[in-house]
Amino acid sequence: MADPAQSTPRISGVRSFARREHTRDLNGVNAAIAGIPFDTGASYRTGARFGPEAIRSASVLLREWDPVLEVATLEDLRIVDWGDVGLTPGDAELAVSQIAEQLAPIAESGAVPLGLGGDHLVALGELRALAATAGPLGLILLDSHADTWDAYMGQRFFHGTPFKRAVEEGLIDPSRSLLAGMRGPSYSAADLEDARALGFEVLPYPELAAGGADAYGELARERAGDGPCFLSFDIDFVDPAFAPATGTPEVGGPSSAEALGYVRSLRDIDFRGFDVVEVSPPYDGPGQVTSLLAANVAYTMLGLLALRRRG
Amino acid sequence: MADPAQSTPRISGVRSFARREHTRDLNGVNAAIAGIPFDTGASYRTGARFGPEAIRSASVLLREWDPVLEVATLEDLRIVDWGDVGLTPGDAELAVSQIAEQLAPIAESGAVPLGLGGDHLVALGELRALAATAGPLGLILLDSHADTWDAYMGQRFFHGTPFKRAVEEGLIDPSRSLLAGMRGPSYSAADLEDARALGFEVLPYPELAAGGADAYGELARERAGDGPCFLSFDIDFVDPAFAPATGTPEVGGPSSAEALGYVRSLRDIDFRGFDVVEVSPPYDGPGQVTSLLAANVAYTMLGLLALRRRG
Amino acid sequence: MADPAQSTPRISGVRSFARREHTRDLNGVNAAIAGIPFDTGASYRTGARFGPEAIRSASVLLREWDPVLEVATLEDLRIVDWGDVGLTPGDAELAVSQIAEQLAPIAESGAVPLGLGGDHLVALGELRALAATAGPLGLILLDSHADTWDAYMGQRFFHGTPFKRAVEEGLIDPSRSLLAGMRGPSYSAADLEDARALGFEVLPYPELAAGGADAYGELARERAGDGPCFLSFDIDFVDPAFAPATGTPEVGGPSSAEALGYVRSLRDIDFRGFDVVEVSPPYDGPGQVTSLLAANVAYTMLGLLALRRRG
Amino acid sequence: MADPAQSTPRISGVRSFARREHTRDLNGVNAAIAGIPFDTGASYRTGARFGPEAIRSASVLLREWDPVLEVATLEDLRIVDWGDVGLTPGDAELAVSQIAEQLAPIAESGAVPLGLGGDHLVALGELRALAATAGPLGLILLDSHADTWDAYMGQRFFHGTPFKRAVEEGLIDPSRSLLAGMRGPSYSAADLEDARALGFEVLPYPELAAGGADAYGELARERAGDGPCFLSFDIDFVDPAFAPATGTPEVGGPSSAEALGYVRSLRDIDFRGFDVVEVSPPYDGPGQVTSLLAANVAYTMLGLLALRRRG
Amino acid sequence: MADPAQSTPRISGVRSFARREHTRDLNGVNAAIAGIPFDTGASYRTGARFGPEAIRSASVLLREWDPVLEVATLEDLRIVDWGDVGLTPGDAELAVSQIAEQLAPIAESGAVPLGLGGDHLVALGELRALAATAGPLGLILLDSHADTWDAYMGQRFFHGTPFKRAVEEGLIDPSRSLLAGMRGPSYSAADLEDARALGFEVLPYPELAAGGADAYGELARERAGDGPCFLSFDIDFVDPAFAPATGTPEVGGPSSAEALGYVRSLRDIDFRGFDVVEVSPPYDGPGQVTSLLAANVAYTMLGLLALRRRG
Amino acid sequence: MADPAQSTPRISGVRSFARREHTRDLNGVNAAIAGIPFDTGASYRTGARFGPEAIRSASVLLREWDPVLEVATLEDLRIVDWGDVGLTPGDAELAVSQIAEQLAPIAESGAVPLGLGGDHLVALGELRALAATAGPLGLILLDSHADTWDAYMGQRFFHGTPFKRAVEEGLIDPSRSLLAGMRGPSYSAADLEDARALGFEVLPYPELAAGGADAYGELARERAGDGPCFLSFDIDFVDPAFAPATGTPEVGGPSSAEALGYVRSLRDIDFRGFDVVEVSPPYDGPGQVTSLLAANVAYTMLGLLALRRRG
Repeated sequence: MADPAQSTPRISGVRSFARREHTRDLNGVNAAIAGIPFDTGASYRTGARFGPEAIRSASVLLREWDPVLEVATLEDLRIVDWGDVGLTPGDAELAVSQIAEQLAPIAESGAVPLGLGGDHLVALGELRALAATAGPLGLILLDSHADTWDAYMGQRFFHGTPFKRAVEEGLIDPSRSLLAGMRGPSYSAADLEDARALGFEVLPYPELAAGGADAYGELARERAGDGPCFLSFDIDFVDPAFAPATGTPEVGGPSSAEALGYVRSLRDIDFRGFDVVEVSPPYDGPGQVTSLLAANVAYTMLGLLALRRRG
Repeated sequence: MADPAQSTPRISGVRSFARREHTRDLNGVNAAIAGIPFDTGASYRTGARFGPEAIRSASVLLREWDPVLEVATLEDLRIVDWGDVGLTPGDAELAVSQIAEQLAPIAESGAVPLGLGGDHLVALGELRALAATAGPLGLILLDSHADTWDAYMGQRFFHGTPFKRAVEEGLIDPSRSLLAGMRGPSYSAADLEDARALGFEVLPYPELAAGGADAYGELARERAGDGPCFLSFDIDFVDPAFAPATGTPEVGGPSSAEALGYVRSLRDIDFRGFDVVEVSPPYDGPGQVTSLLAANVAYTMLGLLALRRRG
Repeated sequence: MADPAQSTPRISGVRSFARREHTRDLNGVNAAIAGIPFDTGASYRTGARFGPEAIRSASVLLREWDPVLEVATLEDLRIVDWGDVGLTPGDAELAVSQIAEQLAPIAESGAVPLGLGGDHLVALGELRALAATAGPLGLILLDSHADTWDAYMGQRFFHGTPFKRAVEEGLIDPSRSLLAGMRGPSYSAADLEDARALGFEVLPYPELAAGGADAYGELARERAGDGPCFLSFDIDFVDPAFAPATGTPEVGGPSSAEALGYVRSLRDIDFRGFDVVEVSPPYDGPGQVTSLLAANVAYTMLGLLALRRRG
Repeated sequence: MADPAQSTPRISGVRSFARREHTRDLNGVNAAIAGIPFDTGASYRTGARFGPEAIRSASVLLREWDPVLEVATLEDLRIVDWGDVGLTPGDAELAVSQIAEQLAPIAESGAVPLGLGGDHLVALGELRALAATAGPLGLILLDSHADTWDAYMGQRFFHGTPFKRAVEEGLIDPSRSLLAGMRGPSYSAADLEDARALGFEVLPYPELAAGGADAYGELARERAGDGPCFLSFDIDFVDPAFAPATGTPEVGGPSSAEALGYVRSLRDIDFRGFDVVEVSPPYDGPGQVTSLLAANVAYTMLGLLALRRRG
Repeated sequence: MADPAQSTPRISGVRSFARREHTRDLNGVNAAIAGIPFDTGASYRTGARFGPEAIRSASVLLREWDPVLEVATLEDLRIVDWGDVGLTPGDAELAVSQIAEQLAPIAESGAVPLGLGGDHLVALGELRALAATAGPLGLILLDSHADTWDAYMGQRFFHGTPFKRAVEEGLIDPSRSLLAGMRGPSYSAADLEDARALGFEVLPYPELAAGGADAYGELARERAGDGPCFLSFDIDFVDPAFAPATGTPEVGGPSSAEALGYVRSLRDIDFRGFDVVEVSPPYDGPGQVTSLLAANVAYTMLGLLALRRRG
Repeated sequence: MADPAQSTPRISGVRSFARREHTRDLNGVNAAIAGIPFDTGASYRTGARFGPEAIRSASVLLREWDPVLEVATLEDLRIVDWGDVGLTPGDAELAVSQIAEQLAPIAESGAVPLGLGGDHLVALGELRALAATAGPLGLILLDSHADTWDAYMGQRFFHGTPFKRAVEEGLIDPSRSLLAGMRGPSYSAADLEDARALGFEVLPYPELAAGGADAYGELARERAGDGPCFLSFDIDFVDPAFAPATGTPEVGGPSSAEALGYVRSLRDIDFRGFDVVEVSPPYDGPGQVTSLLAANVAYTMLGLLALRRRG
């Protein structure tokens, strides 16, 4: 195989995701990377609007072959960098609509969108775009928070509410969903009960860790069934030593090796969309480990897609 | 005089502005410091929501006597740290109303509010609170941008529009106002003309620098007249070497010494409110020079108040 | 339950520990957070004098309910932020006396003090204050160093000696104490023997890790018995990837998840005081993971107190 | 005029210089931005290979109208982002050839190349490409070093030698050149004499500063005459407070305002190429002031081009 | 032994490795620390030329006694800091020759050189110096990359090729070598096969982790046999949370505790040389955890030597 | 003279000041650089104990010829790096004695010591060592604070008191002294009066700036007369944009160019000792501009010595 880095070194060039072509032409495309530079939904640290830029920068280190999934992800799939959604500042509710509207052509094209957040509210826009063509999706969430609150200070559109809204709007099917990784102090013992009352299966982090990746993958497949699904990875799922650059970090989480293991376990699920969210670059150190991890999470998601496509 | 640092060193204690009492009791208070942790109006870098915390942290280095203004600012005035405005996230327009409503009691008490931003949209909320008791105010602005746009991507409430809105709402009197320091690439030659068309006097940075602080102070007094005024200092007025931690930096501006000189020149104006805005701490280096400068700008504003009160 | 963050978002306000009331009124108080901004005892990196400020800043992310201990820590206990001890600079021995004297009223009130260091020498002052009312305490220490040296360059009061001094002064009962987590290069094989010769049980990190949290908790309870105890957590116990911001880091330690597990295992011990020490904020990255971990360690200590009080 | 930021905010999108089109189609193009990610010629700090990425990132803040030059730079010129040169690592001499070869089509097209360095050795490659079509160029250099050494440790191709090589190769005409801004400790008093012996006019920084921008511009025009010229701006010309992120910083230089003033003074010279070099992003603080300044220097160079083209 | 830190605290003095004497006198020396400030072989991030300085700085925290290996490393061995190799910039191939030539006297003296990199290409120079006296060495490599490529962009001397060159030059004996820790996306499935085709045993990270340190040590001893060996530790073997400051980081690796465990397992091998490479200080956070880990890796290598010498 | 960087590049080697020999042999030495790693006297930020290391690191960029003073500083003088003073931690008063005792041999040898701080209290130890052989010295101080307080929180030995102590101890002659550069908020209008009451001439920064370097040099020479003098440069004299890494920064000061100009103006004074103090490296950004400036200040002091020696 021709190795593009042998003709142009990886330090060269305008940064597109994994050095893929930057185009809005979706013809023949399997997966489209879409940046969603948005942090107006964040309750604590902002900065996630620069997440797409930083993940793209780190992603130039990615290469064709995934030696764990054993698939030539960047060769087997035609992947393009679609660019970014353009959003009006200062209005979270409007932004969700703009995301849905702008991503709709990707969903309609049959390409699988992979969203680079942005705070977690962006998932609501993504789900609107996907559900419009695929119907309600099963939600597979790895996150230290369930994001199923009703409102915060009266605001119904912020990064703690997307999946409550998505259930209300019929975009996701809780009975085919699995929320895993929740940890950290919460407002009350009822927090996770609220998510369960919506119909979600919830696997707090201590239980997830006790079971390990294989059991998790099994449970996810069981929940997901054969229907279309969405995989959302909030970088705060990972311990802050591995992902310091995020909006609401929670100590005591998995390592990056463990986190990637959970993602890799999600084979044989019909994912119609992905996202990696809550990377806030101003809070990364000079080694930019958070963005690098996020790029690898996205790459692993694409590997799942390549594997499934290979059948 | 008893020196508080002689009984409790400056590194000690919960951080309130300049080690002043943290209270909402405004009885007998001359100036009330109010944090406005808001960055939903920012078009580029966010993070200004942590401005109040960072400025308070840096302000513990301030001391009683201002040797240039020759006034014992922290002794002559009774100054309290009022705490922060509480804002709903994700809705810029709503936040402006919340700021106005929550700051109203300060304006009504006769204490002079000094707002610690927060992005520049917070000024609109401050002006609403002040104009409700004082009537239209003259605006004395030091900023590298005029912030008199009409809208951005359709959004009428963002950090580039507060003074257009304020004029429309009758909160400020352009004929008694002076916008100074504008520099940097703009969308068109008309940008400053729009501000002038609203009735503002506009002094771009090259002209400001050519005239110097004394001429500036003279012009400001002339514009302001005897009526009530508001002094707003956007930290991006200063060159990024001196204030890197800001949302939309513009290279080629004044030093901190020069910037403080412009503020000190504004004697004998009836300021009813002040703010220092656009400090975005995640973009400061470990030396935290931006927050330290902002604390000194606020201190100098208070010195102007102490001088005027002394008469 | 009323959620305070629903009326005032967590980014707002003067930073007190976990958004608790900042007061010196100890009436009805169960636990009092006391900052001890001191680094004059440090042998290598200083900066721990800013530990209290940084831990308070990170602690605004804490919330009422601890889902692992299953206790509503911030609701069940009345916790106040007592503020900071005021210390004379440049004299380590004097500072220890000042800490003891200023913290005495907390110990006398019956509230449990939780000290936020400051370098580890502060523990000697805390122990003096506590032992004056409770008598000799069992010491439960998690630290990568035993801190039982006799002197350094002739200095008997520095951060490697507090527990030797405490034994000499009769403040702690080595027979009811457990020092765990020691690792890293030392001056000689005798280092830990010196601690054992004082009567301490010493559990080096490899043995601690081999046994795990449950065995550790069991051993600690056995050592502690029914008498009053003090729990001291030096943040350098944790691996520097999780806690880079400390004075004398030692690589090869536990993760934050593991470290919190050791703390959680310490149920059913009569702790009369706690501290979290050696957080040196200038050495944290922008993600401030060390301070965030320290805040969670303190929160978990308070959870132990809440559990015990619940009985 | 349609403002592109009004339909797509500046935080959106794959980063090309000043949000210009990223293409290698030079048809009708006035200026082509070319990144040269190279730091193998650096004698002290490396990192300049990430200069093009960082300058592009900062350049999204640029806008159409330059209010000091009074020209609509981004409107009047058709500017494209040509992408980066691809270089073999570990061989400085080879890299110079690769730069020359790859940039040749730009020079041949008639578009003016603006190189984003990269260490200063890249200028030798640029000059080869330009001189091949234009003949020997006058060199207008703003730099704290003359870069006219013969060799370093035996290496004739490193960032202190490009202009000696360029004279030897007949790429520049010293008699139409001006080297200005030299300062800082040197190996001997002869350093600048060597440059003068090659035929260059040399204006050390103290003399440049004493004369000011107008005199400098006058002298440059006099030297340059009517022939084709190259303008090279080493970011270490500016004081490290304004440009910390560079390979061999020299304290005691001009501010960013002064530095831009020198560039603006260079009207009415027939520049056929430009570069901004020695930006080493790992040494920038989080405010990224160096990259922002470099983007503005490049923008000002383009403004000179737009003015000359307007005639 | 008298503890030097008791007469001179560790924060004092010009930084030599572990406060050892800085001399080129190799008489009676067991191990000589040699810095190799070189990053011209790096394909992505540079900066490793400052690795020796940063590792020396962190190494002042090391002390005499290694409590895990149970050996008084700094007492039992006479270790000197030999200083740094002097290299011509900009020519990777030449630098390799210079390293070989300058290190030859160490190899000839019988002292064991411990190289502080520098990017991994420096190993080729080290191996040339060692093989000249010892003959072909077994290579024990801990690294996330095998570094057995043939060329990159035509360059045969860069940090991905040293071990291919070393095999070609007869410096190492693949049949007595073990490459362990490889992970991360690669150009193709064949990458590791190429290394195996050269005769190397390759243990990718998942297999290494599954087997653990004891099995690894056993396998290494088996491969190494009784002949002379070289131990090379690329800091990117460790997860970027523990070692962010490196040239081509790969997420999902071992912790520092695990990494040190692998090194400690390598007892009873006849190591004639060591290195720790690819520490790039500009990418470390303020806590400098990468350099601290590298210093501890070097210390552990020296401990292996002390143990073997003790017999 | 042979240029050492031509045989060993500046990035190589154990860091001694300006690559000078590291020795305690003072035979024939004109100037001895002595690090004083001490920050126990600091009232706000600590970290200055790492000042000597950081200044040495930056000083490798210095070269032989000073083009402004027109003297070959590093050639004309025999300069050695004497290493660091060893200090007992935690006791400021004792440390002053240790500094005096350890530096005495330098003063007695006739070499001129140049102290690298450390916080400003170190000057008291230096002055004791110097006055023991030279008698009372004139003090030429550039600093934003006069450091003539009597005590702080009861502590008579801290970084705000050295010059009061020095007067009391008869080490300096206030009538031959000049304190210049004072600025920033103070406890009262009397602060500078206290310094004047001790007999010092005090030139606050606004007056210093108004007069410029030549007038300052003239005044200093007039005050100093023919007697022996000490030149102390507190890096906080410079504006924090140029020197962020310091213990108690004051905004609104001179640029590095201006600051160096003041130092250069001090020709023809009989300096017997120098120091550069209050550099606190943890507060520097990655560009390390503060340490670089401090290295250049020290270099300029040495240049004054070289000029005077040349006569």
